[in-house]
Amino acid sequence: MGQTLTEKILADHLVDGELEAGEEIGIEIDQVLTQDTTGTLVWLQFEALDLDEVQTEVAAQYCDHQTYQFDFKNTDDHRFLRSAAGTFGAYFSRPGNGICHNVHRENFAAPGKTLLGSDSHTPTPGGIGQLAIGAGGLDVAVAMGGGPYYIEMPEVVNVRLEGELPEWSTAKDVILEMLRRLTVKGGVGKIFEYTGPGVESLSAPERMTITNMGTELGATSSLFPTDERTREYLAKQDREDEYVDLQPDEDAEYADEIVIDLSELEPLIAQPSMPDNVVPVREAAGQSVDQVIIGSCTNGGYEDILPTAKMLEGRSIQRQTEMIVAPGSKKASEMLARGGWTAELMAAGVNFSEATCGACIGIGHVPASDSVSVRTFNRNFEGRSGIEDDNVYLASPEVAAAAALKGEIVDPRDLADELGDLEAPGFELPDEYEGAENDIITPDDPVDDELIKGPNIGDVPLKDELDAHLAGPTLLKMEDNITTDHIIPATQDILMYRSNIPKLSEFTLSRVDDSFAQRALDSDGGFLVAGENYGQGSSREHAALCPMFLGVEGVFARSFARIHKANLFNFGLIPLTIDEETYGKIEQGDDLEIVDDVAEAVRSGTEEFTVRVNDDWEFTAHLDASEREREILADGGKLSHTKKLAESGDDSSAPADD
Amino acid sequence: MGQTLTEKILADHLVDGELEAGEEIGIEIDQVLTQDTTGTLVWLQFEALDLDEVQTEVAAQYCDHQTYQFDFKNTDDHRFLRSAAGTFGAYFSRPGNGICHNVHRENFAAPGKTLLGSDSHTPTPGGIGQLAIGAGGLDVAVAMGGGPYYIEMPEVVNVRLEGELPEWSTAKDVILEMLRRLTVKGGVGKIFEYTGPGVESLSAPERMTITNMGTELGATSSLFPTDERTREYLAKQDREDEYVDLQPDEDAEYADEIVIDLSELEPLIAQPSMPDNVVPVREAAGQSVDQVIIGSCTNGGYEDILPTAKMLEGRSIQRQTEMIVAPGSKKASEMLARGGWTAELMAAGVNFSEATCGACIGIGHVPASDSVSVRTFNRNFEGRSGIEDDNVYLASPEVAAAAALKGEIVDPRDLADELGDLEAPGFELPDEYEGAENDIITPDDPVDDELIKGPNIGDVPLKDELDAHLAGPTLLKMEDNITTDHIIPATQDILMYRSNIPKLSEFTLSRVDDSFAQRALDSDGGFLVAGENYGQGSSREHAALCPMFLGVEGVFARSFARIHKANLFNFGLIPLTIDEETYGKIEQGDDLEIVDDVAEAVRSGTEEFTVRVNDDWEFTAHLDASEREREILADGGKLSHTKKLAESGDDSSAPADD
Repeated sequence: MGQTLTEKILADHLVDGELEAGEEIGIEIDQVLTQDTTGTLVWLQFEALDLDEVQTEVAAQYCDHQTYQFDFKNTDDHRFLRSAAGTFGAYFSRPGNGICHNVHRENFAAPGKTLLGSDSHTPTPGGIGQLAIGAGGLDVAVAMGGGPYYIEMPEVVNVRLEGELPEWSTAKDVILEMLRRLTVKGGVGKIFEYTGPGVESLSAPERMTITNMGTELGATSSLFPTDERTREYLAKQDREDEYVDLQPDEDAEYADEIVIDLSELEPLIAQPSMPDNVVPVREAAGQSVDQVIIGSCTNGGYEDILPTAKMLEGRSIQRQTEMIVAPGSKKASEMLARGGWTAELMAAGVNFSEATCGACIGIGHVPASDSVSVRTFNRNFEGRSGIEDDNVYLASPEVAAAAALKGEIVDPRDLADELGDLEAPGFELPDEYEGAENDIITPDDPVDDELIKGPNIGDVPLKDELDAHLAGPTLLKMEDNITTDHIIPATQDILMYRSNIPKLSEFTLSRVDDSFAQRALDSDGGFLVAGENYGQGSSREHAALCPMFLGVEGVFARSFARIHKANLFNFGLIPLTIDEETYGKIEQGDDLEIVDDVAEAVRSGTEEFTVRVNDDWEFTAHLDASEREREILADGGKLSHTKKLAESGDDSSAPADD
Repeated sequence: MGQTLTEKILADHLVDGELEAGEEIGIEIDQVLTQDTTGTLVWLQFEALDLDEVQTEVAAQYCDHQTYQFDFKNTDDHRFLRSAAGTFGAYFSRPGNGICHNVHRENFAAPGKTLLGSDSHTPTPGGIGQLAIGAGGLDVAVAMGGGPYYIEMPEVVNVRLEGELPEWSTAKDVILEMLRRLTVKGGVGKIFEYTGPGVESLSAPERMTITNMGTELGATSSLFPTDERTREYLAKQDREDEYVDLQPDEDAEYADEIVIDLSELEPLIAQPSMPDNVVPVREAAGQSVDQVIIGSCTNGGYEDILPTAKMLEGRSIQRQTEMIVAPGSKKASEMLARGGWTAELMAAGVNFSEATCGACIGIGHVPASDSVSVRTFNRNFEGRSGIEDDNVYLASPEVAAAAALKGEIVDPRDLADELGDLEAPGFELPDEYEGAENDIITPDDPVDDELIKGPNIGDVPLKDELDAHLAGPTLLKMEDNITTDHIIPATQDILMYRSNIPKLSEFTLSRVDDSFAQRALDSDGGFLVAGENYGQGSSREHAALCPMFLGVEGVFARSFARIHKANLFNFGLIPLTIDEETYGKIEQGDDLEIVDDVAEAVRSGTEEFTVRVNDDWEFTAHLDASEREREILADGGKLSHTKKLAESGDDSSAPADD
């Protein structure tokens, strides 16, 4: 039986497990990327591992989310990240040099390599045959230290492309069509491999628009084979030597197949407020538009902005519509400026932003109340733009530019008919990618050789090995469906402190009980009790790290959300399930004591634990954990575990120390 | 006796009083400008006047401070401002089109005209012979309605310029030299008129760098005569017909004379943290620099950025130094882009910002902790950059660019010696000022014809005429030296609400007593009692408006700060002085009752008022007010007063209603 391309790359990197869907595998990571909102914690964790230098072929630190630096904590974070990159041997992309995915694809992304990144759109370079996966910060830190990355082997789905895109239809419409068909949950546990005769009709940047936004399908990653278009792209970056020919076997077996005929795609648009709420643009036409933004890691490349510039050259946007162009990289900005396009866009009424994620994450250009914004971004979740009840549409640059020219949503084909002289701009690559050569600091010649920590940058707390004896009060009893947003709110005022765990911890569970953090700190240990589905929502690791910092020793819940349970292991908190009756009987304030020798029981595979309440009655709690998870938990979390393995010289699943 | 240029322009506009230093005069205003942090209240006040349209020749609304639109309230403010401009007949400069002073000088500033602006750097176009003054919002609203502007006639000081600037010395060094000699208080109550043979050696934009930063001397305004350089500047803007020849009489008498020999000026720099802390750059040389920013209304013009671009072309900034260029206007941005300079700056490592005040007011690019920033701005007050204990230096674009190239402060003459091939870039005007033609919406063809108020935009409360009977509790008793910062804090979280008086009022005096606002609201009127120098600090009118909104009827204080006392009149609160013994006797909570018929007594010129305390004892309080101030107070504040005059058809000191 032949192999899919995914299987080929994974086989090349496999260090643990077997390539069976659903099985846990450990893979070697060639490249890592981190950005400024997740990178600080990654480097603090890396520091806590006591490692001297980065072990991956490439580690690149970007500063893209907080480019406007509207608080000194942002600027301090950037300076810390530069110092960490210099100290530990990573590339450092200076603030303003652009979005991690854009700068990475312009400089480092390489076919056949694995990439792990602490950002959900890490799969972008799947468009040139790199297997790229987003992950939590601690996993990235461990990978950067040379440790393998563990993941459940995904199903591989074949997306067969046929035909060619018609005029005015774009790569964005391909991924919008995928979202329309599959929904935002359609890719969970899957990798999408694009195949078929339509592939060669798409340039590398177009392919990366598709793989980038595969994240919105919930997919683990998305992958294209390589070909002359890939080689051409690398050659224009003066990196043709990194080209590798990568194809699935002809008889590869896929878990499923989806067929998209490119020639049948028309301009599409995702309506508020979900990326899969997709309709033909004509169905949304006529909606007046207050704001248009071109940019983001999905459509912020030089090649994405050029069509917009061609459409706007010599024309004016509607006066009631504000239009901002935020290039994905400074290289793109410089190429657009050098080509004269920046001046043309400004003349048409466009504001040019620094290269940044910016508005895509609600930082800057927040829409007005009761207004409509059309953006070339990848997400339009309600409130993500920075205002509740927003109306954000997602579309291609061509559709966005048409909206700015008309002041309302319009199919660009109809606008072309109306104007008479508006030609489809097509999609072209520059002769070469050149610019911003001064904005990446290499590990060979760093600026800093020691860490610079501003007053807001704390240390990562490291937990000791699990105690034999665990006892303490029930610090908080919660209902069902507590989310990670309840545990650590993600509002802007709080986000600033994500590199300051002591400060961030003050907000732990404040949405449930604002006295909790202080009570937990004052107590000598203790437990959380919750109902069903504890820890649902985002994957943020702070939701386990902050309770750990406050001294919480474990969580008793009727059930746990999958990722949060993994995070509890990673930070050394024991997650135990209890039945409905027990949940009903435990009161907040009750003293709990695990009767067993907990450390020994965890290591030895014990599944049932006896817990004594107020020295009065007992219940049984259950631990469901793999052998690897038990070791991590018993060692005090993944950081301590990894460190211990490194010290013991067992490098099978630890960072190398040389 | 001959006239100064100031006297000539004032005489042309005088509607009340005589041109004697220290006397109150009323002048007609030809042009007004407002920006986005002060403009919302100006328009709400204009609306409250029930006027149909702007009466000045030009009224221009700019959106420059909150260009990044970090919060929907910013974007809502911009939309409201556009709608107000459209509704009432003002020009509207779209967000991102640039700083009010830069866009105004490129489009509207005209020799011989008067300009009133709700921004302290309004005097900028003094460089082309416009008499321009910064003022509080209510004064601007009234002027926009056609009412005169009242001011104490300043002293006019002659600044005689001789010689010509040597290479590497700039207009910025002229104003830094003025600050070095006179300090930040040296211009209080004065207008500086620049004369002498050195004037013709300076181009119009250079002159405007000087007049702009005259504000840092505390001056009321600064003024240059007009000549061929003025005509040339207007001609390049296609506005040569607005040129007027303006000179002081040869025998004009000045209150004082200062002589500056331009040929003796060397590159200067203001050290932290005051604009008058000026030394030769060589004295500060060697200080390592983390951040360099070029821009602001002082040095953000095309002509200011061009020398920087020439210096950086083909070179790289130091990698440890971040450098941001924020053009003062989009026209400047577009011209730089069209000339290829934007690409060159980016290649050197510069980040390009949208055109905005931005970092100059602490919005974006806040320095890192313990770092040094060299900026071409006008103010380096401690903390203004957005971080306490900052280290901000002020200098010319040439000195700032040299710092970026060297990574430390260096006299550009020394850097030129070191590099060998760095030539003094000189200062040149473009062939023509062209660009951003699509970013000013004219009153003839507005986008909106009715006000659009987001949920954060409230109404301006209008006060009734002063009651005959004033009585109520002592709501708060305060110490000496209460500042306007105590009355209405200026932190960012609170600033967002400056167009929402009900919300803003919740923070009134919260730094003294956080229960005050609610207590005042719950009470049916009442008074404030304070010690010496009540209301010192900034001129913010909210410090009177918010207590008025809460129902406060008057303030008893041992003494008042001058501007705040004027604001109390403007918002209809009676300011009464008391002696030390009385101050000592009144307790918070005491019931106060003014025995006189207050309304009648205020109008009739009564200076002594009898106040009964707890129906138990009495004291005498004093009112010191001009006839005009008494009328304003009795009418319920300047808004009500102005409205009343307009309705009665008395247009001698009211907005015209036709």
